[in-house]
Amino acid sequence: MNYNDIKDKVRNMLPEKRYRHSENVANCAVKLSEIYGYNKDMAYLAGIVHDCAKYLSNEDVKFYVKKYDIKLDKLEKNSLALSHSIIGSYICKYEYNIENEDVIRAVRFHTTGRENMSLLEKIIYIADLIEEDRNFNGVEKLRELVYGGNLDEALLLSFNNTIKFVIDNNQMIHEKTIKARNYMLENRSNK
Amino acid sequence: MNYNDIKDKVRNMLPEKRYRHSENVANCAVKLSEIYGYNKDMAYLAGIVHDCAKYLSNEDVKFYVKKYDIKLDKLEKNSLALSHSIIGSYICKYEYNIENEDVIRAVRFHTTGRENMSLLEKIIYIADLIEEDRNFNGVEKLRELVYGGNLDEALLLSFNNTIKFVIDNNQMIHEKTIKARNYMLENRSNK
Repeated sequence: MNYNDIKDKVRNMLPEKRYRHSENVANCAVKLSEIYGYNKDMAYLAGIVHDCAKYLSNEDVKFYVKKYDIKLDKLEKNSLALSHSIIGSYICKYEYNIENEDVIRAVRFHTTGRENMSLLEKIIYIADLIEEDRNFNGVEKLRELVYGGNLDEALLLSFNNTIKFVIDNNQMIHEKTIKARNYMLENRSNK
Repeated sequence: MNYNDIKDKVRNMLPEKRYRHSENVANCAVKLSEIYGYNKDMAYLAGIVHDCAKYLSNEDVKFYVKKYDIKLDKLEKNSLALSHSIIGSYICKYEYNIENEDVIRAVRFHTTGRENMSLLEKIIYIADLIEEDRNFNGVEKLRELVYGGNLDEALLLSFNNTIKFVIDNNQMIHEKTIKARNYMLENRSNK
């Protein structure tokens, strides 16, 4: 499948606004790839596809989980906000035939983060938050860090923000985010 | 060893102020045992001994870890603030000869909490925070909840406070606290 076919597939699975978000993330990921030194085509592709499973119906979720024998933990089973990343990574691999494992992992971990993230995983995680249409308290600080060469500082700040947000909204905290945050606190570097 | 012997032992291991804190926790734990229905003697004992390992020297830590083959995780290895609970539980069991496993577990988990805590574990965790000499932003809200019969709500609030405090102070978040907090969010009940 070529890129245009994949874009069409994604466009068919998402509402227009979410598809626009995907394009914004892709464009942001390209900018970050220029700054941090990553393959721009792969970054663009990962941005386009990262949310492909975001609007699956419950039936679709069941279908893909069964089809690909996807293992979800308890929190992921109860929340498409968490499971769409995992399921999306399988769709990328087996429905879109994307062979680049870094792209697939960037999709898989773009919601929770994880320990020892690759550069593309970091780029997609943060591009998802700071793309040009995002507008929340603190987004400017994140952009300042990211475009100023402090990707890891931005990641740490956004993990911390996410954990506090989840607490204040009485949601479950995913352990991957804690592990990602602790790892980043211990190992962050500039650029 | 009888209770007075244990009290003397603890007094010898702690500075006067920390021993007074231990007595305050013990007295608070007795009050909570009356409200929530627990054995007052055991609650008092757990309060007295909970911090017995809080002022161990590095050499003492090494000595007890070796003597009892204590397994500490990475965070606990780097912090007496975390490891004193674990090491203290071994001192209670093998140096003070306390046989009540609930008391030993209350010591072991009084810093991080854990999933599915026993009543005594909850009592000691929260008494440690709200004993009469404690004075921090939000302590009154915790006392109001605890003395009003909402022990689990108080626990959840204090886990949330702790996680935010740890984030704001650039410290590592212990996964046991996250598990304790998520479990409590899902399973809390009044009284």
